[in-house]
Amino acid sequence: MTTVIDDIGLLVTNDPAIGRGALGLVENASIVIDDGVVVSVGPAGQLADDRVDAAGRCVLPGFVDSHSHLVFAGDRAEEFTARMAGTPYDGGGIRVTTEATRAASTERLMELTARRVGEARRYGTTTLEIKSGYGLNVIDEVRSLEVANRFTSETTFLGAHLVPSEYVGRTDDYVDLVCGEMLEAAAPLAKWIDVFCERGAFDADQSARVLDAGKAAGLGLRLHGNQLSEGPGVRLAVEKGCASVDHCTYLSDEDIEALASSNTVATFLPATDFSTRQPYPNARRVIDAGAQVAIASNCNPGSSYTTSVPFCIALSVRDMGMTIEEAVQAVTLGGARALRREDLGRLAPGSAGHAVILDAPSYHHLAYRPGVDVVDRVIGG
Amino acid sequence: MTTVIDDIGLLVTNDPAIGRGALGLVENASIVIDDGVVVSVGPAGQLADDRVDAAGRCVLPGFVDSHSHLVFAGDRAEEFTARMAGTPYDGGGIRVTTEATRAASTERLMELTARRVGEARRYGTTTLEIKSGYGLNVIDEVRSLEVANRFTSETTFLGAHLVPSEYVGRTDDYVDLVCGEMLEAAAPLAKWIDVFCERGAFDADQSARVLDAGKAAGLGLRLHGNQLSEGPGVRLAVEKGCASVDHCTYLSDEDIEALASSNTVATFLPATDFSTRQPYPNARRVIDAGAQVAIASNCNPGSSYTTSVPFCIALSVRDMGMTIEEAVQAVTLGGARALRREDLGRLAPGSAGHAVILDAPSYHHLAYRPGVDVVDRVIGG
Repeated sequence: MTTVIDDIGLLVTNDPAIGRGALGLVENASIVIDDGVVVSVGPAGQLADDRVDAAGRCVLPGFVDSHSHLVFAGDRAEEFTARMAGTPYDGGGIRVTTEATRAASTERLMELTARRVGEARRYGTTTLEIKSGYGLNVIDEVRSLEVANRFTSETTFLGAHLVPSEYVGRTDDYVDLVCGEMLEAAAPLAKWIDVFCERGAFDADQSARVLDAGKAAGLGLRLHGNQLSEGPGVRLAVEKGCASVDHCTYLSDEDIEALASSNTVATFLPATDFSTRQPYPNARRVIDAGAQVAIASNCNPGSSYTTSVPFCIALSVRDMGMTIEEAVQAVTLGGARALRREDLGRLAPGSAGHAVILDAPSYHHLAYRPGVDVVDRVIGG
Repeated sequence: MTTVIDDIGLLVTNDPAIGRGALGLVENASIVIDDGVVVSVGPAGQLADDRVDAAGRCVLPGFVDSHSHLVFAGDRAEEFTARMAGTPYDGGGIRVTTEATRAASTERLMELTARRVGEARRYGTTTLEIKSGYGLNVIDEVRSLEVANRFTSETTFLGAHLVPSEYVGRTDDYVDLVCGEMLEAAAPLAKWIDVFCERGAFDADQSARVLDAGKAAGLGLRLHGNQLSEGPGVRLAVEKGCASVDHCTYLSDEDIEALASSNTVATFLPATDFSTRQPYPNARRVIDAGAQVAIASNCNPGSSYTTSVPFCIALSVRDMGMTIEEAVQAVTLGGARALRREDLGRLAPGSAGHAVILDAPSYHHLAYRPGVDVVDRVIGG
């Protein structure tokens, strides 16, 4: 099966060997995709089973959203409303969603997740990482991962999202469960393990235990850190060799130095800072230090109920000091790096043929037209 | 023709005589619309030519976007990009759009405007004010208003948007043209007259001349003011009895007092503050003083290229100190007041049957799900 995307006015390849600048821009291009893999980028003319006319508009690699929590039931509109009226966010609402998720049938979770995955795709996301973390017991974490596996291969076991109600005051006992029976059941269903290293959730020692156990079980490592305050999260993530440390809202100079000299991606979640009314991180400082960055949606019902990567781009450009080019790279190549996927984030020979056709002449419109869906069509993924 | 919207889980009527609170909330309602006018609100059961199933979700009055500049050609993505890199906004780019608009055929302007009106409707807007202001000569202002009239009855003559290139240094001569030949040609095509009262555009005396001439020609009055700095705009608008003064980003205590004791609506344009990286106005202060407020998109290619009223709601709640209820009122009743339209902004007997069906159980989702299109269907308008 050969797909040709033709009459591309402006193509973002993310490969400087193919086109101009860091984005590897090519004008008047076409792409040939064979069995899901890009085989050539260049002028048009190839025969195709499926010819897609980009009508002179902009095409870029499909967005890689490397941080989402899509398997949940219920919503938390009341908590959001209270927060907008002044109640600060502390993550405690995770227990509300856990209760609703445990109570939902697997069929219902499947249906809800499918709907959210579809919504994300509509906004250009072709690869989604999906975490568990609203089960918080063996049976419901397994159930969540089973659902997640139906939609992505980038599944993450997040038993260490928060201590569930029945373990409050016994965090170490809960960590025993996460690292023992729960991990054993979850590991075959997950690619990654993740932990929320934050005051009120898990401290550095507990987080380290979770990561070590996950690594021993063959999982890749990720960490939620530095969301609500400076803390040990970023440095622990770097020390343990996590693929990504996510949130990074509060970073010390030492954190930035650690990131810059590591292979760990700093993943910003600006829609969370928007919806929790936190300050935005200064991405400029992190990029200028030489660290690798990504932007992801963190779609979840508490702190960031959006699937829209374009919305995250607009916030990053307006409020985090990133250029539009940097933001576009952060949601494509950046997300791919945060998932250690060499095949994603580019439209170059050998890359996955995951493409977004904008209803706009250039990628600038992703920030220039905030709140407007400028994605016309999504190919592959 | 009778339309019944049935199985409404939560209905916003904006009529406290019908339902709970300022939003006049009614649970488990239906609405009967006869020939475009709401004839009853209450429990279901009525026969209908057209039955719309709201499936237990939230329904609210169609959004009244009382400030837009949809008749234009070209875009200003480059100016936006430069601004995000640090170049401050000064309104000068209006001349770039004027050049592109003058060069475009009327057919092309019609096609571009139709597309933008359709986009706005998709996000829930059922009434749109549309301004001229990228013609800035007699023939092209008339042409712009002719196009606007094809899409709305809320048309505004904005010859005094900026002094065009050919009049730079001769602002008073241009005001003579606006108040003379241009107004004469435009008045039959417009309901409103508007002027940009700001340093670099028109001063208080020039703005007063424009408003007085418009009033004498039978037009209602509106004013762009206090966008880039404190200035005389708000007080002039109140003094002249404008229906609305728009932007209101910088307000002195005297401005707020003047608004509170007037019939002039303070219309906030938060997507503009977003896209020009200005500070957001403190709407709380204005509402608490007792002034009437609206929120509008200001959709235009320079300072706010969005048609999404839900995006404006999300910003107002996050960054302008408004509650979600206040923001919902500001885009419905507030917009209607800013256009002095008694028939709009409510879903109560006698109101226009313009309704938005959300793909959500409550109006909170308009702020709680930023960047996501939660509008499922739009009725009427």
